[in-house]
Amino acid sequence: MSDFPKFVEIREEGPREGFQIEKKIYPIEQRIELINLLSDTGLKRIQVGSFVSPKYVPQMADTGELFERIKRVDGVAYTALWLNDKGFRKAMTAHNVDIDARLLFYPSDTFSRQNNNASSMEMREKQREWVRLYKAENLPVDAAYVMTAFGCNFEGNISQERVLDDFRFLIDLCAEENIDLPILVIADTMGWGNPEAVKRMIGALRELAPTARIGMHIHDTRGMGIANMYAALSMGVDMFESSIAGLGGCPFAGHGHARAAGNVCTEDAVFMCHELGIETGIDLDKVILAAQKTEEIIGAPLMGRVMHTGGLDKYRKGK
Amino acid sequence: MSDFPKFVEIREEGPREGFQIEKKIYPIEQRIELINLLSDTGLKRIQVGSFVSPKYVPQMADTGELFERIKRVDGVAYTALWLNDKGFRKAMTAHNVDIDARLLFYPSDTFSRQNNNASSMEMREKQREWVRLYKAENLPVDAAYVMTAFGCNFEGNISQERVLDDFRFLIDLCAEENIDLPILVIADTMGWGNPEAVKRMIGALRELAPTARIGMHIHDTRGMGIANMYAALSMGVDMFESSIAGLGGCPFAGHGHARAAGNVCTEDAVFMCHELGIETGIDLDKVILAAQKTEEIIGAPLMGRVMHTGGLDKYRKGK
Repeated sequence: MSDFPKFVEIREEGPREGFQIEKKIYPIEQRIELINLLSDTGLKRIQVGSFVSPKYVPQMADTGELFERIKRVDGVAYTALWLNDKGFRKAMTAHNVDIDARLLFYPSDTFSRQNNNASSMEMREKQREWVRLYKAENLPVDAAYVMTAFGCNFEGNISQERVLDDFRFLIDLCAEENIDLPILVIADTMGWGNPEAVKRMIGALRELAPTARIGMHIHDTRGMGIANMYAALSMGVDMFESSIAGLGGCPFAGHGHARAAGNVCTEDAVFMCHELGIETGIDLDKVILAAQKTEEIIGAPLMGRVMHTGGLDKYRKGK
Repeated sequence: MSDFPKFVEIREEGPREGFQIEKKIYPIEQRIELINLLSDTGLKRIQVGSFVSPKYVPQMADTGELFERIKRVDGVAYTALWLNDKGFRKAMTAHNVDIDARLLFYPSDTFSRQNNNASSMEMREKQREWVRLYKAENLPVDAAYVMTAFGCNFEGNISQERVLDDFRFLIDLCAEENIDLPILVIADTMGWGNPEAVKRMIGALRELAPTARIGMHIHDTRGMGIANMYAALSMGVDMFESSIAGLGGCPFAGHGHARAAGNVCTEDAVFMCHELGIETGIDLDKVILAAQKTEEIIGAPLMGRVMHTGGLDKYRKGK
């Protein structure tokens, strides 16, 4: 039985996921131009950059300036990633940041230390602090993420039970504080998922939290991205995080070859949704233009497909 | 309901699909080396080249010599493509060709003319001649292909009814001649398919021919390749044609950008099958080595993913 949603929300992570993994630091003007193009596609949420340590991620050091210089479009949220209180404070004091109040958790202790400089158990306690912080700032929590949900390059297989246990912790935490938790996001940070594992995970998470909205953060590291998204769609998942042209990858995820570790590709994801009769509110041709600009900026072939061939509309009636 | 097969046969088309679309003619020694690597992976059928007009496809002009110089491995079939009687005769007189007696049909009249220099209706009549030719040569028919089964860059949408009608013609033709037709192959020549369209087509074809084995020839032109393969697997399809490193594409299919029009990628397909618990008889690490060699020969980044990151076995137990 398939249970496809009628409308899917696609959140763009390319400007952050994409440029953080590149060795080179690209001129801010190019990133502004790309974000402005993305703003015109119908995407409603764009992650512009991250407020993280410039020592470890120098590519994101000018995130504050980026927020000041992009052309904001009404109805589009411009968000940022942060991983600790200090980053959150920076985001709060920067100009024009749409604060995306997230909770994060890692079933992999090693990756938690690599990405967040805190053990898994410390991160649990930090989530409690974050919830209070968001509450004090009057920010509704947007989503709770469980990272490396299908496996971890450092710790190997991650059991479904561990992932569910982490979601249970985050759900209970929010319940204790009497706040809503609108979206539970399963993140396949290192590209370990396959379509059947995705379906099993979603099924189990629905049993745990029958009324929660479920989202997915997908990496296409091993070519399963679109198939995993299809599997999730067939289970009714209606929020996906993707990256223009398939850019991206986490610099601390232990991948050998950065260029292959990107997120599921925005324009390919949009194409699939439309072909399946699912609306996205996104203009495929415009998102293809943004992808082509991304490839031009990076100056090397990127992994997206539809940007190289175009969609089907121009062919559908024949020549 | 899913109906995954226990074992899937993956047929390698890269040496033919891959090099026919490249503008450059690669030295025969490189193609020999690649085919020899592929022979050692567990793949049981490798399409070495094609016997087609060297005027239109000069990249395949040395196919006869290629067959003479590769190192044959017992149990591996080395096949060739041809599109007319002349090509078939060349294949029959060349050395060491494992003749792959195919029937071909095109619901798209324009593509039939482009690819085969014959109208759709002429191709129907030719299939009758081919069946008699194979019979006279004592060659069992291996498979019947219906090309551009999901749509055509020249003629636009192709209805399921047209595709089924073509399969019906080929099935009846074989029945009239009293010969078996072991595999019906749905070919998404131009990358128009999506996972739901794939499922609908397979379901309808099973109703038409309940006992036939169904195979798929998939192009990843718009990034749907692995998702389409997953959809087909879930419907019990157990034969796929793929291309090492995702090489390939038909030079007459009207694609703008050759490098993006390739087949579903062999090593990514093998990876997915193994992750789904489906056996292929293929060694993933060896097929990754062959993909890396392919990228080295082409001298540009290719679309395969797993060849850039490796499989999961080395990570599964953690570091």
